[in-house]
Amino acid sequence: MTKRGRFITLEGGEGVGKSTNVSFVAECLQAEGLEVVRTREPGGTERGEAIRALLLDPAPQESLNVDAELLLMFAARAQHLAEKILPALERGAWVVCDRFTDATFAYQGGGRGIAKERIAILENFVQQGLSPDLTLLLDMPQEAAKQRLESRLSARHEQRDRFEQEQADFFQAVRDAYLARAADAPERFAVIDAQHSLDNVQAQLRQTLATRVATWR
Amino acid sequence: MTKRGRFITLEGGEGVGKSTNVSFVAECLQAEGLEVVRTREPGGTERGEAIRALLLDPAPQESLNVDAELLLMFAARAQHLAEKILPALERGAWVVCDRFTDATFAYQGGGRGIAKERIAILENFVQQGLSPDLTLLLDMPQEAAKQRLESRLSARHEQRDRFEQEQADFFQAVRDAYLARAADAPERFAVIDAQHSLDNVQAQLRQTLATRVATWR
Repeated sequence: MTKRGRFITLEGGEGVGKSTNVSFVAECLQAEGLEVVRTREPGGTERGEAIRALLLDPAPQESLNVDAELLLMFAARAQHLAEKILPALERGAWVVCDRFTDATFAYQGGGRGIAKERIAILENFVQQGLSPDLTLLLDMPQEAAKQRLESRLSARHEQRDRFEQEQADFFQAVRDAYLARAADAPERFAVIDAQHSLDNVQAQLRQTLATRVATWR
Repeated sequence: MTKRGRFITLEGGEGVGKSTNVSFVAECLQAEGLEVVRTREPGGTERGEAIRALLLDPAPQESLNVDAELLLMFAARAQHLAEKILPALERGAWVVCDRFTDATFAYQGGGRGIAKERIAILENFVQQGLSPDLTLLLDMPQEAAKQRLESRLSARHEQRDRFEQEQADFFQAVRDAYLARAADAPERFAVIDAQHSLDNVQAQLRQTLATRVATWR
């Protein structure tokens, strides 16, 4: 019987360097000879990406109700789990996912102010007990993250998406909610100090992975 | 203080003549001097219609997970309630809606086999106690409805949407689930025998409305 794969998520606000480090984590695991499926939320599947487009679109005049936003996030997640994450884990692949349910608690909970208990209803509905094996939280002070986001946005000359348009207090609330989630589940979370150089951050990631992977194999 | 409006839904499977009779019900109420907002589900708002397009699109190769479908339905519903239905009721308008949560119990519950208890979790999450004041269920035997649907589809020369592509046992399960919902809430439901001529069906609708509206005004 194939041994079930492990489910690793990367979390953090805008500008903390998540995309670069998702690739780095996937490469570290591949270097260990593991099959790795790299994916992201919201999205990760054909239908999930269509839902992502609805969620990020800054264009419609009509504002998106907070409950509707939350339900769309979990709709994309149900599709992602059924079509991609669970089949990969079952066949023994390791899944590295750019954001998962902790992001929902941070953005829709901390950022939009939806009660944790309401989010937990949908978490239980969709995940039915499934949780990541390891969550790498890239954390840095909000002001530093904001500067990185600004320079990235000015480099790519694109319009900000619905979340990137939010203000400082929103991002501070997102960070606070992430840190509260990490404090509530220290056995699952590793908090990475993302304020340092990329080399330093990746050394922290490599160290964390080495410890966990050794325990699991 | 303005008197709150009433919330009336029309329900029924494919081919029972729902669209024609939604207009008729709206016109009956307008003839009484009431402000009427006519709307539909899934959809009813700019963002809700975008979700509807995802739900009905027969094109993607990737199948839509049943939980994802259910969450998308309720995402569209949360948006619809917040942006359109509740503001209309608050200002005293009557809302006539082509399908609502009974359709979810019929299609995703009866048709797709999702347990009623799971659907009720999302119903409570989104509606928080709100329910239609009157639900007009257009009912006819599945075989007769199928014939009407076939002739409508061949007249409009369009591809069937994801639901219209389903088979006879799916539609039978939808009808059975609708009738079970009606039996569980007889004070809210009026079951209209839709197998007769349009004149006959509309006489039934007019009679039902006259009785209810008289009670409410």
